[in-house]
Amino acid sequence: MRIIVKLGGSVIRKGAGGFIKELPSLAGSNELVVIHGGGYMVNDLLGRMGLTPRFVTSPSGVVSRYTDLETLAVYVMAMMKINKDLVSSAQSMGVNAVGLSGLDGGILRAKRKDRLIIVDERGRERVIEGGYTGKIIQVNAEALRAVSSAGFLPIIAPIAMDEDTKGPLNVDSDQVMEALAGSVMPDYAVMLTDVDGVLVGGSPIPKVDPSDESLLSSSEVGGGMRRKLRMAMRMGGAGIKVVIANGLAESPVSAALRGAGTHVY
Amino acid sequence: MRIIVKLGGSVIRKGAGGFIKELPSLAGSNELVVIHGGGYMVNDLLGRMGLTPRFVTSPSGVVSRYTDLETLAVYVMAMMKINKDLVSSAQSMGVNAVGLSGLDGGILRAKRKDRLIIVDERGRERVIEGGYTGKIIQVNAEALRAVSSAGFLPIIAPIAMDEDTKGPLNVDSDQVMEALAGSVMPDYAVMLTDVDGVLVGGSPIPKVDPSDESLLSSSEVGGGMRRKLRMAMRMGGAGIKVVIANGLAESPVSAALRGAGTHVY
Repeated sequence: MRIIVKLGGSVIRKGAGGFIKELPSLAGSNELVVIHGGGYMVNDLLGRMGLTPRFVTSPSGVVSRYTDLETLAVYVMAMMKINKDLVSSAQSMGVNAVGLSGLDGGILRAKRKDRLIIVDERGRERVIEGGYTGKIIQVNAEALRAVSSAGFLPIIAPIAMDEDTKGPLNVDSDQVMEALAGSVMPDYAVMLTDVDGVLVGGSPIPKVDPSDESLLSSSEVGGGMRRKLRMAMRMGGAGIKVVIANGLAESPVSAALRGAGTHVY
Repeated sequence: MRIIVKLGGSVIRKGAGGFIKELPSLAGSNELVVIHGGGYMVNDLLGRMGLTPRFVTSPSGVVSRYTDLETLAVYVMAMMKINKDLVSSAQSMGVNAVGLSGLDGGILRAKRKDRLIIVDERGRERVIEGGYTGKIIQVNAEALRAVSSAGFLPIIAPIAMDEDTKGPLNVDSDQVMEALAGSVMPDYAVMLTDVDGVLVGGSPIPKVDPSDESLLSSSEVGGGMRRKLRMAMRMGGAGIKVVIANGLAESPVSAALRGAGTHVY
């Protein structure tokens, strides 16, 4: 099977050992692509350098990192550190991983957002310069396939190549997953996070119909999970089996394929 | 032709524009592998984090970085930042580069030095814990070839995979070149530095016979260049055409192939 796994930063921070341990069997019998996050490491490194992470809020209430040029440099360093840590972990399990950013082989091409509309402290909408955040516009699936068919497990950092400057851009790792999934069309897209799935009343909903949007307006589904769920529903609607599952579990991907977490398809 | 180029950190710091501009023609008509250094960026980042770079001196007078675990993390981040900057620059010239560390695909396997003999401030020899510096023991040329034959230009960061732990190790970029050259057997190995070659009396010596060691004891050849020269003579003696040339020149590799710099073979 073809499987794309997104390993959230929250899982990496709390311990991705369960996932790492299942890598050999998973990569041995499937065509696997791993995407990772790691915002916490960016914040850590900013802190170590005496810089303060800056976040902005969109009119719809989505909070995201504001990436100026200095933050972008730190972003690349921190993400590549996580990337190489994951490659080491995979190699220590005998899995021949290759860590790549979206710059490498032009795997992820993105367009910089020129301007952002944000809501300031006083609740007023303001237009600010866009910073170095991108929206993915093209995936070089060919390059990824070349890496896979050479026998390597690709592990992808959420850094895209600016279509205009060819420089790096900060891209959201969930969006990387959606873009890659749309291009590679895997059998399964598994989003590993630090909760058991889409929780309602403290328990994960086992199954979500991608066409039933009612859950998106539920007050029980928080902002971050709502974004993930919307993305999962778009992928599910396109015929990909999406699972949002707990990456801190033992063999989390195998568990997800066997039914754990929230299945959206 | 098969060409390995090592781009010294001094060149990157002062401006690798000349090399970047010749990349399209160079990569277009040759099988090229690029290795880079970048110790200056490691020092910069250590400084930004309030850490002091530490260097040790061997009994033979070679000064090298002492890499404790914290320095190793910074080393990986700084080197991967330079790596991705070079990939961006190559991509901006239309060259489809892929940046790799030696961890990726297990390209560079190394053995950690358990202990180091150093000379302390008082001139006394001391044995200290080896830190996270490695000696390359194996090159996965297969993996490199797979990347090249898929149409990518490999750009290699001087980070090796610890044969025991599979974690990263700091390796000297000149040593990376020697190890890769010994495995890939290129037609040319070009070492780009910030001087015109092996200087004697202020001018570069055009030609060095790899079997004539007299230059190695010349007082005019400083420690850093002596190390490079010794390495170049070993490679030259093994049948590889080695050139030590100025990477700040226009089209430095083409110039070196046409006769600039010091030719060791």
